[in-house]
Amino acid sequence: MTIVYAAIACGVLAVLYGIVTSGQVLRAPAGNEKMQDIAAAIQEGAKAYLGRQYLTIAVVGVIVAVVLALTLGLIATVSFLVGAILSGVAGFVGMHISVRANVRTAEAARGSLQGGLTMAFRSGAITGMLVAGLGLLSIAGLFWYFVAVAGEEANSRVVIEMLTALAFGASLISIFARLGGGIFTKAADVGADLVGKVEAGIPEDDPRNPAVIADNVGDNVGDCAGMAADLFETYVVTIGLTMVSIALLMEALVGQVLIAMMALPLIIGGVCIITSIIGTYMVRLGKNQSIMGALYKGFWTTVILSIPAIYFATAWALGSANLGMNAEIGTIGGANPANPAVIQITGMKLFYCMMIGLAVTGLLVWITEYYTGTNYRPVKSIAKASVTGHGTNVIQGLAISLESTALPTLVIVVAVISTYQIAGIIGVAFAATALLALAGMVVALDAYGPVTDNAGGIAEMAGLEDEVRHRTDALDAVGNTTKAVTKGYAIGSAALAALVLFGAYTTDLDHYSVALGLTGPVDFSLSNPYVIVGLLLGALLPYLFGAFGMTAVGRAAGSVVEDVRNQFRDNPGIMAGTSRPNYGRTVDIVTKAAIKEMIIPSLLPVLSPIAVYFIIAEVGGKSQGFAALGAMLLGVIVSGLFVAISMTSGGGAWDNAKKYIEDGNYGGKGSEAHKAAVTGDTVGDPYKDTAGPAVNPMIKITNIVALLLLAALAGGGTV
Amino acid sequence: MTIVYAAIACGVLAVLYGIVTSGQVLRAPAGNEKMQDIAAAIQEGAKAYLGRQYLTIAVVGVIVAVVLALTLGLIATVSFLVGAILSGVAGFVGMHISVRANVRTAEAARGSLQGGLTMAFRSGAITGMLVAGLGLLSIAGLFWYFVAVAGEEANSRVVIEMLTALAFGASLISIFARLGGGIFTKAADVGADLVGKVEAGIPEDDPRNPAVIADNVGDNVGDCAGMAADLFETYVVTIGLTMVSIALLMEALVGQVLIAMMALPLIIGGVCIITSIIGTYMVRLGKNQSIMGALYKGFWTTVILSIPAIYFATAWALGSANLGMNAEIGTIGGANPANPAVIQITGMKLFYCMMIGLAVTGLLVWITEYYTGTNYRPVKSIAKASVTGHGTNVIQGLAISLESTALPTLVIVVAVISTYQIAGIIGVAFAATALLALAGMVVALDAYGPVTDNAGGIAEMAGLEDEVRHRTDALDAVGNTTKAVTKGYAIGSAALAALVLFGAYTTDLDHYSVALGLTGPVDFSLSNPYVIVGLLLGALLPYLFGAFGMTAVGRAAGSVVEDVRNQFRDNPGIMAGTSRPNYGRTVDIVTKAAIKEMIIPSLLPVLSPIAVYFIIAEVGGKSQGFAALGAMLLGVIVSGLFVAISMTSGGGAWDNAKKYIEDGNYGGKGSEAHKAAVTGDTVGDPYKDTAGPAVNPMIKITNIVALLLLAALAGGGTV
Repeated sequence: MTIVYAAIACGVLAVLYGIVTSGQVLRAPAGNEKMQDIAAAIQEGAKAYLGRQYLTIAVVGVIVAVVLALTLGLIATVSFLVGAILSGVAGFVGMHISVRANVRTAEAARGSLQGGLTMAFRSGAITGMLVAGLGLLSIAGLFWYFVAVAGEEANSRVVIEMLTALAFGASLISIFARLGGGIFTKAADVGADLVGKVEAGIPEDDPRNPAVIADNVGDNVGDCAGMAADLFETYVVTIGLTMVSIALLMEALVGQVLIAMMALPLIIGGVCIITSIIGTYMVRLGKNQSIMGALYKGFWTTVILSIPAIYFATAWALGSANLGMNAEIGTIGGANPANPAVIQITGMKLFYCMMIGLAVTGLLVWITEYYTGTNYRPVKSIAKASVTGHGTNVIQGLAISLESTALPTLVIVVAVISTYQIAGIIGVAFAATALLALAGMVVALDAYGPVTDNAGGIAEMAGLEDEVRHRTDALDAVGNTTKAVTKGYAIGSAALAALVLFGAYTTDLDHYSVALGLTGPVDFSLSNPYVIVGLLLGALLPYLFGAFGMTAVGRAAGSVVEDVRNQFRDNPGIMAGTSRPNYGRTVDIVTKAAIKEMIIPSLLPVLSPIAVYFIIAEVGGKSQGFAALGAMLLGVIVSGLFVAISMTSGGGAWDNAKKYIEDGNYGGKGSEAHKAAVTGDTVGDPYKDTAGPAVNPMIKITNIVALLLLAALAGGGTV
Repeated sequence: MTIVYAAIACGVLAVLYGIVTSGQVLRAPAGNEKMQDIAAAIQEGAKAYLGRQYLTIAVVGVIVAVVLALTLGLIATVSFLVGAILSGVAGFVGMHISVRANVRTAEAARGSLQGGLTMAFRSGAITGMLVAGLGLLSIAGLFWYFVAVAGEEANSRVVIEMLTALAFGASLISIFARLGGGIFTKAADVGADLVGKVEAGIPEDDPRNPAVIADNVGDNVGDCAGMAADLFETYVVTIGLTMVSIALLMEALVGQVLIAMMALPLIIGGVCIITSIIGTYMVRLGKNQSIMGALYKGFWTTVILSIPAIYFATAWALGSANLGMNAEIGTIGGANPANPAVIQITGMKLFYCMMIGLAVTGLLVWITEYYTGTNYRPVKSIAKASVTGHGTNVIQGLAISLESTALPTLVIVVAVISTYQIAGIIGVAFAATALLALAGMVVALDAYGPVTDNAGGIAEMAGLEDEVRHRTDALDAVGNTTKAVTKGYAIGSAALAALVLFGAYTTDLDHYSVALGLTGPVDFSLSNPYVIVGLLLGALLPYLFGAFGMTAVGRAAGSVVEDVRNQFRDNPGIMAGTSRPNYGRTVDIVTKAAIKEMIIPSLLPVLSPIAVYFIIAEVGGKSQGFAALGAMLLGVIVSGLFVAISMTSGGGAWDNAKKYIEDGNYGGKGSEAHKAAVTGDTVGDPYKDTAGPAVNPMIKITNIVALLLLAALAGGGTV
C-alpha cells in the first residue's frame, strides 16, 4: 500500500499546488475599475451558466444514480457520484480562477509580456493540476478504501465495478460539460461575430456589442470548464481501465505482486504530476520572445523528466514486491485462442510501452502543430485559397481537415502494434496511461487559452494602450494551436484506450457468461453480419452527434443574433456609445439555449448501446446482441477518431489561416481574402470547439455504458 | 444453359435499344448554326479529354495486365481486359451520344417542354442501357464460354477467378474515370464561376467566359462517362460476386441445380433490363407538368414491373432444374463455427431477399430526395441559414451532410439483418443483385442530368428565347436530385456488397490456406489488435482519398482561373464581345490538370491493401497480415459509407439551397443570402461530384485487389 499512499500524496501535492498558485494569482493586481467592471460581468455570466448547467446535470445525475442503485447497488452508485462530483469540482474551481486571472493577465501585460504569460499560464496550470490531482485522488482513494480498509481483493469484482462506475460518473459530467460548454462558446462567438462584425461593422470585442460578454464567458465555459471535465474523464477512464485490465487479464497475480501491479498506474500518474509541476516553472520567454517556445520549454521539460521518473517509479513499485525490472511479473494470453502465444510481462517491457506512450504524446503534439500552426503548408494553403474567395477557402479547409487524420492514425497504429508485440493488451494500456499521465501539463497549456483570449477582450473593452493589446494578441495567438493540441491528445488517447475497453468488455462477457445465460462464446468475427451491423451503427454515432452539435450552434447563435438586433433597435444609445448594452440578457439567452440543446445529443451515447443490445437480442438472440454491442464500441472509435481529428485540426487550421492573413499576408485585415478567411473561421468554430471535442467523451461513455449494461444484465452488482 | 442464353439475349436487347435510340436522337434536328458551333466545341473538348484519359488508363491497364499475366496467368488477364474495355466502351458511347443530344435537347425545347424532356431522357437511357447491357453481356458471355465451351465446372476456380478479374478490370477503369472526370468537371465549374461570376461579374454560361466550354465538357465527362464507368463496375462486381459467393458458399451444389443457381443472378439482371426499357417509355409529363413526376413515373414503373418479373424469372430458372419455388435448393452455413445454424435456401426465400433489395432501392431514392429536394426541411434549413451569411450556410450544410448518413445506414442495417435471417450471406447477395438490376433505369436518370445542363448552356450562349431557357432550366433543376439519388444508390449497394466481398475473402483464405502456408484459421475477432489496426487503416483510406480529391479540384481550378485571367488581359476584345475566347486552350489545361491529378489518388486503393499485407505480415506474421487486410476491407466500407453519403447528399442539398433562393426565397438572386448560397454550392461541388462518388469504386477496388492478392500469393492462377 506504500505505493498507493505515495500516489495519494502526489494527488494532494497537485491540489496544494492549485491552492498556493490560486493565492498567487488572486493576490495579483486586478487592474483599474473599468477592467474590474468588465471582469465582474464575465464572472457573473460564467457563474450563472455553470450554476444552471450543474443543476441540469445534477437532475440527470440523480436519475442515473437511482437507476444504478436499483440495478447495480450501492458501491457503483457511490463511485459514480464520486466521479461525477470531483469532475464537477475540477471544472468549477478551474473556471473560478480562470475568470479572475483574465483581468489580472491584462493588468500584468501592461508591465511586460513575460508578466502576462506567467499569469495566464499559472491560471491554466491550476486547472491542469486539479484535473490530474483530483483524478488521481479519486481512483487511488477509492482503491485504498476498498482494498486496505474494506479488505477486498485488489482484483475482485467489487474493485472492478467501483472503477467502472467511477469512470461513468466522470464521463457523464464530461459529455454534458463538453457539449453544453461547446454550444455556449460557439453560439456566443458566432452570434457576436455575425451581428457585430458582419452586420453592424464594429470590431471584435467592441463593448457596444451586447454579445461580447457572452463571448468571453463562452471561452471559459468551453475551453476551461469543458476541457477540464473532458480530460478528468479521460484521465480516470484510462488509468482506471488500465487497473481493470490488469485485474481481468492477469488473473493469476496474487498478494504483493498483485497490489504492486495494480498500484503501478497510480504511481506513474503520481510522479508525472511532479514532473508537470516542475515543467510549469520552466515556462519562460527566451531571447527570441517566442511564446510558443516558452510553453514548449515547459512541456518538453515535463516529457524529458518523465522518462527517468517513470523508470524509477516502475522499479520502486515492482521492488516493493521484490521484483527486479527484468523479473517476470506474470503472463497474459494463452487462454484466448486468438492470442495463443503467452506473453511474459516484465518491468522493462512495461517501461518500454510507457516510453512509446510518451513518444505518441510528443508526435501527436508535433503533428497537430504542423496542421494548425501558421508556419507550415496546411494553414498557408488555406490562407492562399482565401484569395479566390469564400468557397475555395472552405474547400481547402475541408481538404486539410480530411488529410489531417492520416499521420495521427499511423502513429496510433504503430503504437498499438509495437506495444502489443511487447506486452500484449497490458502494454497498450500502459502506453495509454503514460500518455494520460501528462494530462496536468497538457490541460495547463489548454486552459491558458481562454485566459489570454479574455485578457485581450478586456484590454480592448477597457481601452488599454495599443502595446498592451499587442501583447495580449500575441499571447492569444498561440492559444489556437495549444487548444488544438489538447483535443488531438484527448482523442488519440481514446483510440489507444479503445482496445483496452474492448478487452474489458470481452473479458466481462466471459466472466458473466453463465449469469447472462449464454451457451457459448460470443462471435466477434468480422464474418458475423451482426458484427458488421454493430460497426455501422457505432460508426453512425459520431456523425449523428456531430450533426446535432453543429445544428445546435446554428440555432443558439440565431437566438443571439435576434437578441442583439433587438437591443440595437430598442436602444439606439448603444451604438452611439452613450448607453451600456444589457450584457446579462444575452448571456442568459445563450445559457438557456445551450442547456436546452445539450440534453438530447448527450443522451445519444448513453441510450444507443442499450437500444442496440435489446433490439438485436430480440431479432438475432442474446449472443448476437452482445456481438453487435461489442462491435458498436469499436465502430464508434473507428469512425469517431477520424471525425474528431478532422474537425479539431481543420477548425484550428481555419482559425490560424485567418490570423495568418491578419498578420499582413494576402492583403491583410479587411481584404477580400480576409473576409473569406473569416468565413472559414466561422465554419471551423463549431467544428473544433463543439462537435469535434465532444466525440472523445462520447466514445468513452458508449463503452462504459456497455460495461455497466453487462453487469446489470448479469443480475446486479456485487453489493 | 437456356437461362444464360436468355440473359445474353436481354443484354443484346439493351444494346439494340441503345443503337435504335441513338439513331432516333441523332436524326433529330440539331438547331441553328450558332447552336451547332457551340455543340461542336463541346464535342471536340469531350473527345480530346476522353482520348487522353483513356490513353493514360491504357498505360496503367497494360502494366496491370502484365502483372496479372505474370502472377495469375492468361484467364485472369483476358477477363481483366474484357471488363476494362467494355467499361470504357459504355462510358465512351454514352458520352458520344450525350454531347450530341445536348444541342438537340435545346432545339427540342424550342418546341415544347415534353420534347426537351424526351430527348434528354432518351439520351440518358442510351447510357443506362449500355451500362446494364454490356455489364450483363460481359459476365454472361464469359460464364457461357468457360462453362459451355471450355467445359469447366460452373463453380470451379477458373470461373471464380474469371469473375474476379472481370470485376477488377471494370473497377480499375471506374476509379480513374470517376476521379479524373470528377476533377475535370469541378475544376472547370469552380474555375469558371470564380473568374466569371465572381471576378468579371458575368453570368453563368456567358459565351465571353473562356472556361464556359470546359464547364459544359465537364458535365459530360463527370456525370455521364464517369458515372457510367462507376455503375458498370458496381453492376459487374455485384452480380459477379453473387455468383462467386454461390460457388464458394454452396459447395454441395452440382449439375443442373448448380447451373440454375449460378445463372439466376444473370437472368434477374436480364428481366430487369426489359422492365427498365418499358419504364423509359413511361417518362411523360402529366397534367401538372412536373418533370420529377415524369421521371418517377418511369422509375416506379420499372420497380413495380420488376416484382413479378423477378418472381417469374426465379421460378423459371429453378424450374429448369426441376425445382419448385418452395423446394430446397441447397444449404449454407454449418461448416463455419460462427454460423452454426444450417440455413435451407429456397426460391421463395431468395425472392423475398430480392424484394428487400428493391425496397432498399426505393427507400434510398426517397431518403436522398428528402435530403436534397427543395421541398423539405434540410434544403430549406440551409437556405434559411444563408440569410446570416457564408459561414452559417456552410455550418448548416455540414450539419445536414453529417445527418444525412443516418437513415440510409439504418435502411442498410435492417436490410442486412433481414436478408441474413432469411437466407444467410446468399440472401444479402441476392438483395444486392436485385438492387443493382435496376442500374439501367437509375443510370438513365443520372445521365439525363448533363444533357439538360448542357442544353441550358447552349440555349444561353446561342441567345435563344427566354421561354426556351426557362424550359431548359426546369429540366436542369431536377438533375441535381437525380444525380444525388444515383450516387446514394451506388454507395448503398457497396455497403450491401461489402459483406459478400468479405465472405468471398474469408472463403478464399480457407481455400488457399495450405498454399499460403497458414497453420490455422485466421483470427478475425475484434479482440485481435491487428484487426483493429486493419479497421483503422481501412477507415483512413476514404479520408485520405477525399483530401486528395478536394485538393486536386482546388489546384486544377486555380490553373483555370489563371488561364482565363490571361485571356481576358491579352485580348480585351473578349469582354467587349468582339472576339471569341480560346475555349480549346482552357479545355486543354483542365484536361492536363485532371489527368495529372487523378493518378496518385487512384493508385491509393490499389497499392494500400498490398502494402498493409506485406508490412503487417513482416511484423506480426502471415496470419495477422491476412487478418489486418481483411479488417481493412471492412474498415474502408464502414468509414467510406459515411464519407460518401455525407458528401453526395450534403453537396446536393447545398446546390438546391442555392436554387431554392434563386426561385425567389430569402431575397432571391443577387441578395446577400444568394451570395452565401453560392459559396455553399461551390463547397458542395467537389464534395458531391469529385470526392464523394469516387469512394464507391475505391471501396470495391480495395476489396478486389485483396482477393487477387490472395490468389497471387497462393502461387498464381489456375492457368
